[in-house]
Amino acid sequence: MTRALMERLPFEDIIYFGDTARVPYGVKSVATIEQFAQQIVDFLLQHEVKLMVIACNTIAAVAAQKIRNRLDLPVVDVIGAGARNAVATTRNGAIGVIATPTTVNSNAYARGVHALDATMRVYSQACPLLVPLVEEGWLDHPVTRMTVQEYLRPVLAEEVDTLVLGCTHYPLLKPLLAQEAGPNIRLVDSATSVAEEVAAVLHDRQIAAPVKQSADYRYYVTDIPLRFQSTGERFLGRSLQKLEMVQL
Amino acid sequence: MTRALMERLPFEDIIYFGDTARVPYGVKSVATIEQFAQQIVDFLLQHEVKLMVIACNTIAAVAAQKIRNRLDLPVVDVIGAGARNAVATTRNGAIGVIATPTTVNSNAYARGVHALDATMRVYSQACPLLVPLVEEGWLDHPVTRMTVQEYLRPVLAEEVDTLVLGCTHYPLLKPLLAQEAGPNIRLVDSATSVAEEVAAVLHDRQIAAPVKQSADYRYYVTDIPLRFQSTGERFLGRSLQKLEMVQL
Repeated sequence: MTRALMERLPFEDIIYFGDTARVPYGVKSVATIEQFAQQIVDFLLQHEVKLMVIACNTIAAVAAQKIRNRLDLPVVDVIGAGARNAVATTRNGAIGVIATPTTVNSNAYARGVHALDATMRVYSQACPLLVPLVEEGWLDHPVTRMTVQEYLRPVLAEEVDTLVLGCTHYPLLKPLLAQEAGPNIRLVDSATSVAEEVAAVLHDRQIAAPVKQSADYRYYVTDIPLRFQSTGERFLGRSLQKLEMVQL
Repeated sequence: MTRALMERLPFEDIIYFGDTARVPYGVKSVATIEQFAQQIVDFLLQHEVKLMVIACNTIAAVAAQKIRNRLDLPVVDVIGAGARNAVATTRNGAIGVIATPTTVNSNAYARGVHALDATMRVYSQACPLLVPLVEEGWLDHPVTRMTVQEYLRPVLAEEVDTLVLGCTHYPLLKPLLAQEAGPNIRLVDSATSVAEEVAAVLHDRQIAAPVKQSADYRYYVTDIPLRFQSTGERFLGRSLQKLEMVQL
Protein backbone atom coordinates (compact mmCIF):
# COMPACT_ATOMS: atom_id res chain seq x y z
CA MET A 1 0.00 0.00 0.00
CA THR A 2 2.67 2.47 1.09
CA ARG A 3 4.77 1.30 -1.83
CA ALA A 4 1.93 1.91 -4.31
CA LEU A 5 1.46 5.41 -2.88
CA MET A 6 5.17 6.16 -3.19
CA GLU A 7 5.24 4.99 -6.79
CA ARG A 8 2.10 6.84 -7.85
CA LEU A 9 2.82 10.03 -5.87
CA PRO A 10 6.60 10.41 -5.75
CA PHE A 11 6.55 13.98 -4.41
CA GLU A 12 4.22 13.45 -1.46
CA ASP A 13 5.64 13.09 2.04
CA ILE A 14 4.26 10.04 3.77
CA ILE A 15 3.87 9.30 7.46
CA TYR A 16 3.28 5.64 8.04
CA PHE A 17 1.86 4.33 11.30
CA GLY A 18 1.93 0.63 12.15
CA ASP A 19 0.50 -0.60 15.43
CA THR A 20 2.93 -3.51 15.59
CA ALA A 21 2.54 -3.93 19.36
CA ARG A 22 -1.14 -4.78 19.00
CA VAL A 23 -1.48 -6.47 15.62
CA PRO A 24 -3.25 -8.44 14.30
CA TYR A 25 -6.46 -6.40 14.30
CA GLY A 26 -8.47 -8.84 12.20
CA VAL A 27 -9.59 -10.97 15.11
CA LYS A 28 -10.37 -8.20 17.62
CA SER A 29 -13.77 -6.86 18.54
CA VAL A 30 -15.29 -3.76 16.95
CA ALA A 31 -15.13 -1.78 20.21
CA THR A 32 -11.43 -2.43 20.65
CA ILE A 33 -10.57 -1.62 17.04
CA GLU A 34 -12.53 1.63 17.25
CA GLN A 35 -10.65 2.62 20.37
CA PHE A 36 -7.24 1.74 18.90
CA ALA A 37 -8.08 3.54 15.64
CA GLN A 38 -9.00 6.66 17.58
CA GLN A 39 -5.59 6.67 19.28
CA ILE A 40 -3.82 6.27 15.94
CA VAL A 41 -5.79 9.09 14.36
CA ASP A 42 -4.92 11.34 17.32
CA PHE A 43 -1.26 10.52 16.80
CA LEU A 44 -1.32 11.25 13.07
CA LEU A 45 -3.20 14.52 13.57
CA GLN A 46 -0.26 15.80 15.61
CA HIS A 47 1.77 15.61 12.40
CA GLU A 48 -0.47 17.99 10.46
CA VAL A 49 -1.35 15.61 7.68
CA LYS A 50 -3.45 16.91 4.77
CA LEU A 51 -5.07 13.60 3.90
CA MET A 52 -5.50 10.35 5.72
CA VAL A 53 -5.42 6.86 4.22
CA ILE A 54 -6.99 4.01 6.17
CA ALA A 55 -4.82 1.30 4.72
CA CYS A 56 -5.86 -1.46 7.12
CA ASN A 57 -8.96 -3.25 5.84
CA THR A 58 -10.11 -4.17 9.33
CA ILE A 59 -10.00 -0.57 10.58
CA ALA A 60 -11.66 0.61 7.39
CA ALA A 61 -14.35 -2.05 7.81
CA VAL A 62 -15.41 -1.08 11.30
CA ALA A 63 -14.21 2.48 11.96
CA ALA A 64 -14.00 4.41 8.66
CA GLN A 65 -17.27 6.26 9.18
CA LYS A 66 -16.40 7.35 12.71
CA ILE A 67 -12.99 8.57 11.58
CA ARG A 68 -14.55 10.51 8.67
CA ASN A 69 -17.10 12.11 10.96
CA ARG A 70 -14.35 13.30 13.26
CA LEU A 71 -11.99 14.77 10.70
CA ASP A 72 -11.93 17.86 8.53
CA LEU A 73 -9.47 16.16 6.18
CA PRO A 74 -10.21 13.98 3.19
CA VAL A 75 -10.08 10.31 4.20
CA VAL A 76 -9.44 7.58 1.63
CA ASP A 77 -10.18 4.08 2.81
CA VAL A 78 -9.05 0.82 1.34
CA ILE A 79 -12.49 -0.79 1.32
CA GLY A 80 -14.19 2.01 -0.60
CA ALA A 81 -11.38 1.89 -3.16
CA GLY A 82 -11.43 -1.90 -3.37
CA ALA A 83 -15.20 -2.02 -3.81
CA ARG A 84 -15.04 0.46 -6.71
CA ASN A 85 -12.24 -1.50 -8.32
CA ALA A 86 -14.14 -4.78 -7.94
CA VAL A 87 -17.31 -3.36 -9.49
CA ALA A 88 -15.28 -2.02 -12.41
CA THR A 89 -13.51 -5.36 -12.86
CA THR A 90 -16.26 -7.96 -12.70
CA ARG A 91 -18.01 -9.11 -15.89
CA ASN A 92 -20.49 -11.57 -14.43
CA GLY A 93 -21.42 -9.54 -11.33
CA ALA A 94 -20.13 -12.15 -8.88
CA ILE A 95 -17.37 -10.86 -6.59
CA GLY A 96 -15.40 -12.86 -4.04
CA VAL A 97 -13.71 -11.22 -1.06
CA ILE A 98 -11.06 -12.79 1.14
CA ALA A 99 -10.32 -10.92 4.35
CA THR A 100 -9.83 -11.16 8.12
CA PRO A 101 -12.68 -12.45 10.32
CA THR A 102 -13.58 -8.98 11.61
CA THR A 103 -13.64 -7.48 8.11
CA VAL A 104 -15.86 -10.29 6.83
CA ASN A 105 -18.10 -10.06 9.85
CA SER A 106 -18.57 -6.33 9.31
CA ASN A 107 -20.00 -6.97 5.85
CA ALA A 108 -18.23 -3.76 4.75
CA TYR A 109 -17.21 -4.96 1.27
CA ALA A 110 -20.72 -6.12 0.46
CA ARG A 111 -22.10 -2.77 1.64
CA GLY A 112 -19.48 -0.90 -0.40
CA VAL A 113 -20.20 -2.90 -3.54
CA HIS A 114 -23.98 -2.69 -3.15
CA ALA A 115 -23.82 1.06 -2.66
CA LEU A 116 -22.39 1.21 -6.17
CA ASP A 117 -24.47 -1.53 -7.77
CA ALA A 118 -27.20 -3.32 -5.89
CA THR A 119 -27.37 -6.16 -8.44
CA MET A 120 -23.88 -7.46 -7.64
CA ARG A 121 -23.41 -10.67 -5.68
CA VAL A 122 -20.64 -10.66 -3.06
CA TYR A 123 -19.19 -13.77 -1.38
CA SER A 124 -16.86 -13.22 1.55
CA GLN A 125 -14.53 -15.69 3.18
CA ALA A 126 -12.62 -15.12 6.41
CA CYS A 127 -9.00 -16.30 6.14
CA PRO A 128 -7.49 -15.90 9.63
CA LEU A 129 -4.36 -17.93 8.84
CA LEU A 130 -3.14 -15.95 5.86
CA VAL A 131 -1.67 -13.07 7.88
CA PRO A 132 0.39 -15.42 10.10
CA LEU A 133 1.53 -17.36 7.02
CA VAL A 134 2.75 -14.15 5.38
CA GLU A 135 4.45 -13.09 8.62
CA GLU A 136 6.18 -16.49 8.71
CA GLY A 137 7.42 -15.81 5.18
CA TRP A 138 5.82 -18.96 3.74
CA LEU A 139 4.74 -17.16 0.57
CA ASP A 140 5.15 -20.20 -1.67
CA HIS A 141 4.91 -23.11 0.71
CA PRO A 142 2.80 -26.29 0.48
CA VAL A 143 1.15 -25.41 3.80
CA THR A 144 0.09 -22.01 2.46
CA ARG A 145 -1.16 -23.57 -0.76
CA MET A 146 -3.27 -26.11 1.10
CA THR A 147 -4.65 -23.39 3.37
CA VAL A 148 -5.53 -21.20 0.39
CA GLN A 149 -7.23 -24.13 -1.34
CA GLU A 150 -9.37 -24.71 1.72
CA TYR A 151 -10.33 -21.02 2.06
CA LEU A 152 -11.01 -20.54 -1.67
CA ARG A 153 -13.13 -23.68 -2.14
CA PRO A 154 -16.47 -22.13 -1.07
CA VAL A 155 -15.73 -18.87 -2.90
CA LEU A 156 -14.86 -20.62 -6.17
CA ALA A 157 -18.03 -22.69 -5.86
CA GLU A 158 -19.96 -19.42 -6.26
CA GLU A 159 -18.37 -18.89 -9.70
CA VAL A 160 -17.01 -15.45 -8.95
CA ASP A 161 -14.90 -13.87 -11.72
CA THR A 162 -13.25 -11.30 -9.42
CA LEU A 163 -11.47 -11.83 -6.12
CA VAL A 164 -10.75 -8.90 -3.80
CA LEU A 165 -7.63 -9.27 -1.65
CA GLY A 166 -9.25 -7.68 1.39
CA CYS A 167 -6.20 -7.43 3.65
CA THR A 168 -2.93 -5.59 3.12
CA HIS A 169 -0.94 -8.76 3.76
CA TYR A 170 -2.52 -10.74 0.93
CA PRO A 171 -0.83 -9.11 -2.09
CA LEU A 172 2.37 -10.89 -1.01
CA LEU A 173 0.50 -14.12 -1.77
CA LYS A 174 -0.64 -12.92 -5.19
CA PRO A 175 1.24 -15.49 -7.30
CA LEU A 176 -0.05 -18.38 -5.21
CA LEU A 177 -3.58 -16.93 -5.02
CA ALA A 178 -3.63 -16.41 -8.80
CA GLN A 179 -2.62 -20.03 -9.37
CA GLU A 180 -5.24 -21.41 -7.01
CA ALA A 181 -8.00 -19.08 -8.20
CA GLY A 182 -7.28 -20.07 -11.81
CA PRO A 183 -7.03 -18.08 -15.05
CA ASN A 184 -10.68 -16.98 -15.15
CA ILE A 185 -10.59 -14.95 -11.98
CA ARG A 186 -9.09 -11.47 -11.75
CA LEU A 187 -7.48 -10.46 -8.50
CA VAL A 188 -8.23 -7.00 -7.14
CA ASP A 189 -5.43 -5.58 -5.03
CA SER A 190 -6.67 -2.41 -3.38
CA ALA A 191 -3.25 -0.76 -3.14
CA THR A 192 -3.35 0.59 -6.70
CA SER A 193 -6.97 1.73 -6.32
CA VAL A 194 -6.12 3.58 -3.12
CA ALA A 195 -3.15 5.31 -4.75
CA GLU A 196 -5.33 6.39 -7.70
CA GLU A 197 -8.01 7.71 -5.40
CA VAL A 198 -5.50 9.64 -3.31
CA ALA A 199 -4.04 11.17 -6.48
CA ALA A 200 -7.52 12.22 -7.63
CA VAL A 201 -8.42 13.78 -4.29
CA LEU A 202 -5.14 15.69 -4.05
CA HIS A 203 -5.68 16.97 -7.59
CA ASP A 204 -9.33 17.92 -7.08
CA ARG A 205 -8.59 19.82 -3.89
CA GLN A 206 -5.45 21.34 -5.37
CA ILE A 207 -3.34 20.17 -2.47
CA ALA A 208 -0.86 17.98 -4.35
CA ALA A 209 2.80 18.55 -3.48
CA PRO A 210 4.93 20.43 -5.99
CA VAL A 211 7.67 18.63 -7.92
CA LYS A 212 10.76 18.39 -5.74
CA GLN A 213 14.01 16.49 -5.28
CA SER A 214 12.71 13.78 -3.02
CA ALA A 215 9.86 13.10 -0.62
CA ASP A 216 10.15 12.53 3.11
CA TYR A 217 9.09 9.16 4.52
CA ARG A 218 8.68 8.56 8.22
CA TYR A 219 7.67 5.27 9.82
CA TYR A 220 6.19 5.07 13.30
CA VAL A 221 5.53 1.74 14.95
CA THR A 222 4.48 0.73 18.46
CA ASP A 223 6.88 -2.21 18.59
CA ILE A 224 9.91 -3.40 16.66
CA PRO A 225 9.50 -7.15 16.86
CA LEU A 226 12.14 -9.71 15.98
CA ARG A 227 11.50 -9.94 12.28
CA PHE A 228 10.06 -6.51 11.67
CA GLN A 229 12.85 -5.19 9.52
CA SER A 230 12.75 -8.10 7.08
CA THR A 231 8.93 -8.26 6.90
CA GLY A 232 8.64 -4.50 6.54
CA GLU A 233 11.21 -4.36 3.80
CA ARG A 234 9.55 -7.26 2.01
CA PHE A 235 6.35 -5.17 1.94
CA LEU A 236 7.96 -1.94 0.91
CA GLY A 237 10.61 -3.27 -1.40
CA ARG A 238 12.93 -0.64 0.05
CA SER A 239 14.92 -0.18 3.21
CA LEU A 240 13.26 1.31 6.27
CA GLN A 241 14.95 4.52 7.27
CA LYS A 242 13.54 7.01 9.77
CA LEU A 243 11.87 4.25 11.74
CA GLU A 244 10.77 5.29 15.22
CA MET A 245 9.09 3.39 18.02
CA VAL A 246 6.34 5.31 19.83
CA GLN A 247 3.79 4.69 22.58
CA LEU A 248 0.15 5.59 22.11
CA MET B 1 -3.23 -24.13 32.61
CA THR B 2 -6.15 -22.58 34.49
CA ARG B 3 -7.94 -25.89 34.13
CA ALA B 4 -5.02 -27.84 35.63
CA LEU B 5 -4.93 -25.40 38.55
CA MET B 6 -8.67 -25.78 39.14
CA GLU B 7 -8.42 -29.56 39.12
CA ARG B 8 -5.38 -29.76 41.39
CA LEU B 9 -6.47 -26.98 43.77
CA PRO B 10 -10.27 -27.07 43.89
CA PHE B 11 -10.58 -24.72 46.88
CA GLU B 12 -8.41 -21.88 45.62
CA ASP B 13 -10.01 -18.78 44.16
CA ILE B 14 -8.48 -17.92 40.77
CA ILE B 15 -8.26 -14.60 38.99
CA TYR B 16 -7.40 -15.09 35.35
CA PHE B 17 -6.10 -12.26 33.21
CA GLY B 18 -5.92 -12.56 29.43
CA ASP B 19 -4.59 -9.68 27.34
CA THR B 20 -6.78 -10.59 24.39
CA ALA B 21 -6.59 -7.09 22.86
CA ARG B 22 -2.84 -7.39 22.39
CA VAL B 23 -2.16 -11.09 21.83
CA PRO B 24 -0.15 -12.78 20.46
CA TYR B 25 2.87 -11.91 22.60
CA GLY B 26 5.19 -14.47 21.03
CA VAL B 27 6.33 -12.24 18.18
CA LYS B 28 6.69 -8.97 20.11
CA SER B 29 9.94 -7.40 21.31
CA VAL B 30 11.29 -7.89 24.82
CA ALA B 31 10.78 -4.21 25.72
CA THR B 32 7.11 -4.28 24.74
CA ILE B 33 6.42 -7.54 26.55
CA GLU B 34 8.07 -6.23 29.71
CA GLN B 35 5.93 -3.11 29.60
CA PHE B 36 2.69 -5.05 28.99
CA ALA B 37 3.60 -7.55 31.72
CA GLN B 38 4.13 -4.70 34.17
CA GLN B 39 0.64 -3.36 33.47
CA ILE B 40 -0.89 -6.80 33.98
CA VAL B 41 0.95 -7.31 37.28
CA ASP B 42 -0.29 -3.89 38.46
CA PHE B 43 -3.84 -4.93 37.62
CA LEU B 44 -3.59 -8.25 39.44
CA LEU B 45 -2.01 -6.65 42.52
CA GLN B 46 -5.16 -4.57 42.95
CA HIS B 47 -6.98 -7.85 43.62
CA GLU B 48 -4.83 -8.81 46.60
CA VAL B 49 -3.60 -12.09 45.24
CA LYS B 50 -1.46 -14.31 47.48
CA LEU B 51 0.50 -15.99 44.69
CA MET B 52 1.07 -15.19 41.05
CA VAL B 53 1.37 -17.65 38.19
CA ILE B 54 3.05 -16.53 34.98
CA ALA B 55 1.19 -18.89 32.71
CA CYS B 56 2.30 -17.31 29.41
CA ASN B 57 5.60 -18.81 28.28
CA THR B 58 6.62 -15.68 26.42
CA ILE B 59 6.14 -13.42 29.46
CA ALA B 60 7.89 -15.99 31.64
CA ALA B 61 10.75 -16.14 29.14
CA VAL B 62 11.52 -12.44 29.07
CA ALA B 63 10.00 -10.86 32.20
CA ALA B 64 9.84 -13.45 35.01
CA GLN B 65 12.92 -12.14 36.81
CA LYS B 66 11.75 -8.53 36.74
CA ILE B 67 8.32 -9.53 38.03
CA ARG B 68 9.88 -11.60 40.84
CA ASN B 69 12.16 -8.74 41.85
CA ARG B 70 9.19 -6.42 42.11
CA LEU B 71 6.88 -8.61 44.15
CA ASP B 72 6.70 -9.77 47.73
CA LEU B 73 4.54 -12.70 46.68
CA PRO B 74 5.63 -16.14 45.55
CA VAL B 75 5.74 -16.28 41.75
CA VAL B 76 5.47 -19.58 39.89
CA ASP B 77 6.41 -19.42 36.23
CA VAL B 78 5.64 -21.90 33.52
CA ILE B 79 9.19 -22.11 32.17
CA GLY B 80 10.78 -22.97 35.51
CA ALA B 81 8.14 -25.66 36.02
CA GLY B 82 8.50 -26.97 32.47
CA ALA B 83 12.29 -27.12 32.70
CA ARG B 84 12.11 -29.15 35.94
CA ASN B 85 9.57 -31.51 34.39
CA ALA B 86 11.71 -31.96 31.27
CA VAL B 87 14.85 -32.78 33.26
CA ALA B 88 12.89 -35.31 35.31
CA THR B 89 11.42 -36.86 32.17
CA THR B 90 14.36 -37.28 29.79
CA ARG B 91 16.37 -40.49 29.79
CA ASN B 92 18.97 -39.65 27.14
CA GLY B 93 19.54 -36.01 28.18
CA ALA B 94 18.32 -34.55 24.89
CA ILE B 95 15.32 -32.22 25.28
CA GLY B 96 13.37 -30.55 22.49
CA VAL B 97 11.39 -27.36 23.05
CA ILE B 98 8.74 -25.93 20.73
CA ALA B 99 7.67 -22.38 21.50
CA THR B 100 6.98 -18.93 20.11
CA PRO B 101 9.79 -16.98 18.38
CA THR B 102 10.33 -14.65 21.35
CA THR B 103 10.46 -17.52 23.85
CA VAL B 104 12.97 -19.41 21.68
CA ASN B 105 15.02 -16.28 21.12
CA SER B 106 15.21 -15.64 24.87
CA ASN B 107 16.89 -19.03 25.40
CA ALA B 108 14.93 -19.25 28.67
CA TYR B 109 14.22 -23.00 28.51
CA ALA B 110 17.87 -23.83 27.85
CA ARG B 111 18.90 -21.62 30.76
CA GLY B 112 16.25 -23.20 33.00
CA VAL B 113 17.32 -26.74 32.09
CA HIS B 114 21.05 -26.01 32.39
CA ALA B 115 20.57 -24.43 35.81
CA LEU B 116 19.32 -27.87 36.92
CA ASP B 117 21.73 -30.02 34.94
CA ALA B 118 24.48 -28.55 32.81
CA THR B 119 25.01 -31.80 30.90
CA MET B 120 21.60 -31.69 29.20
CA ARG B 121 21.28 -30.81 25.52
CA VAL B 122 18.37 -28.54 24.58
CA TYR B 123 17.08 -27.98 21.03
CA SER B 124 14.53 -25.22 20.55
CA GLN B 125 12.31 -24.59 17.56
CA ALA B 126 10.17 -21.48 17.01
CA CYS B 127 6.68 -22.37 15.76
CA PRO B 128 4.93 -19.06 14.99
CA LEU B 129 2.04 -20.68 13.11
CA LEU B 130 0.84 -23.03 15.83
CA VAL B 131 -0.97 -20.36 17.86
CA PRO B 132 -2.96 -19.11 14.83
CA LEU B 133 -3.75 -22.71 13.84
CA VAL B 134 -5.13 -23.42 17.32
CA GLU B 135 -7.10 -20.16 17.27
CA GLU B 136 -8.55 -21.21 13.89
CA GLY B 137 -9.62 -24.47 15.54
CA TRP B 138 -7.70 -26.65 13.06
CA LEU B 139 -6.60 -29.04 15.80
CA ASP B 140 -6.61 -32.11 13.57
CA HIS B 141 -6.29 -30.69 10.09
CA PRO B 142 -3.92 -31.68 7.25
CA VAL B 143 -2.54 -28.12 7.20
CA THR B 144 -1.69 -28.31 10.90
CA ARG B 145 -0.13 -31.74 10.46
CA MET B 146 2.08 -30.54 7.59
CA THR B 147 3.10 -27.47 9.59
CA VAL B 148 3.97 -29.59 12.63
CA GLN B 149 6.00 -31.96 10.45
CA GLU B 150 8.00 -29.05 9.13
CA TYR B 151 8.63 -27.56 12.57
CA LEU B 152 9.48 -30.91 14.20
CA ARG B 153 11.87 -32.14 11.49
CA PRO B 154 15.03 -30.39 12.82
CA VAL B 155 14.12 -31.20 16.44
CA LEU B 156 13.59 -34.91 15.71
CA ALA B 157 16.89 -34.98 13.83
CA GLU B 158 18.58 -34.23 17.16
CA GLU B 159 17.17 -37.47 18.62
CA VAL B 160 15.48 -35.85 21.60
CA ASP B 161 13.42 -38.18 23.80
CA THR B 162 11.43 -35.37 25.46
CA LEU B 163 9.51 -32.54 23.85
CA VAL B 164 8.42 -29.52 25.91
CA LEU B 165 5.22 -27.83 24.72
CA GLY B 166 6.50 -24.33 25.41
CA CYS B 167 3.32 -22.35 24.78
CA THR B 168 -0.05 -22.58 26.50
CA HIS B 169 -1.80 -23.07 23.17
CA TYR B 170 0.09 -26.22 22.24
CA PRO B 171 -1.54 -28.74 24.60
CA LEU B 172 -4.64 -28.49 22.38
CA LEU B 173 -2.47 -30.04 19.64
CA LYS B 174 -1.25 -32.85 21.90
CA PRO B 175 -2.78 -35.77 19.97
CA LEU B 176 -1.37 -34.52 16.67
CA LEU B 177 2.01 -33.64 18.20
CA ALA B 178 2.23 -37.07 19.84
CA GLN B 179 1.56 -38.78 16.51
CA GLU B 180 4.13 -36.72 14.63
CA ALA B 181 6.76 -36.95 17.37
CA GLY B 182 6.34 -40.72 17.48
CA PRO B 183 6.11 -43.23 20.33
CA ASN B 184 9.67 -42.72 21.62
CA ILE B 185 9.23 -39.10 22.59
CA ARG B 186 7.46 -37.97 25.75
CA LEU B 187 5.57 -34.70 25.64
CA VAL B 188 5.96 -32.33 28.57
CA ASP B 189 2.92 -30.13 29.12
CA SER B 190 3.81 -27.53 31.73
CA ALA B 191 0.25 -27.11 33.04
CA THR B 192 0.46 -30.06 35.40
CA SER B 193 3.96 -29.07 36.56
CA VAL B 194 2.77 -25.55 37.33
CA ALA B 195 -0.23 -26.83 39.29
CA GLU B 196 2.03 -29.14 41.32
CA GLU B 197 4.46 -26.34 42.05
CA VAL B 198 1.66 -23.98 43.11
CA ALA B 199 0.30 -26.67 45.44
CA ALA B 200 3.75 -27.16 46.98
CA VAL B 201 4.33 -23.44 47.51
CA LEU B 202 0.89 -22.93 49.08
CA HIS B 203 1.53 -25.85 51.41
CA ASP B 204 5.08 -24.79 52.37
CA ARG B 205 3.98 -21.26 53.16
CA GLN B 206 0.82 -22.47 54.87
CA ILE B 207 -1.37 -20.22 52.77
CA ALA B 208 -3.54 -22.88 51.11
CA ALA B 209 -7.27 -22.18 51.15
CA PRO B 210 -9.42 -24.19 53.59
CA VAL B 211 -11.87 -26.79 52.30
CA LYS B 212 -15.07 -25.03 51.22
CA GLN B 213 -18.18 -25.41 49.09
CA SER B 214 -16.79 -23.95 45.90
CA ALA B 215 -14.06 -21.66 44.68
CA ASP B 216 -14.51 -18.29 43.01
CA TYR B 217 -13.27 -17.87 39.44
CA ARG B 218 -13.02 -14.49 37.77
CA TYR B 219 -11.86 -13.87 34.21
CA TYR B 220 -10.60 -10.49 33.07
CA VAL B 221 -9.76 -9.85 29.43
CA THR B 222 -8.84 -6.73 27.46
CA ASP B 223 -10.99 -7.68 24.49
CA ILE B 224 -13.79 -10.10 23.76
CA PRO B 225 -13.10 -11.01 20.15
CA LEU B 226 -15.48 -12.83 17.84
CA ARG B 227 -14.61 -16.35 18.78
CA PHE B 228 -13.40 -15.79 22.31
CA GLN B 229 -16.14 -17.69 24.05
CA SER B 230 -15.66 -20.86 22.02
CA THR B 231 -11.85 -20.77 22.14
CA GLY B 232 -11.84 -19.96 25.84
CA GLU B 233 -14.24 -22.73 26.66
CA ARG B 234 -12.24 -25.16 24.55
CA PHE B 235 -9.23 -24.35 26.74
CA LEU B 236 -11.02 -24.51 30.04
CA GLY B 237 -13.42 -27.33 29.31
CA ARG B 238 -16.03 -25.35 31.23
CA SER B 239 -18.23 -22.36 30.62
CA LEU B 240 -16.89 -18.88 31.20
CA GLN B 241 -18.87 -17.11 33.86
CA LYS B 242 -17.83 -13.86 35.55
CA LEU B 243 -16.05 -12.69 32.42
CA GLU B 244 -15.26 -8.99 32.42
CA MET B 245 -13.60 -6.76 29.86
CA VAL B 246 -11.15 -4.21 31.30
CA GLN B 247 -8.73 -1.58 30.02
CA LEU B 248 -5.17 -1.49 31.25
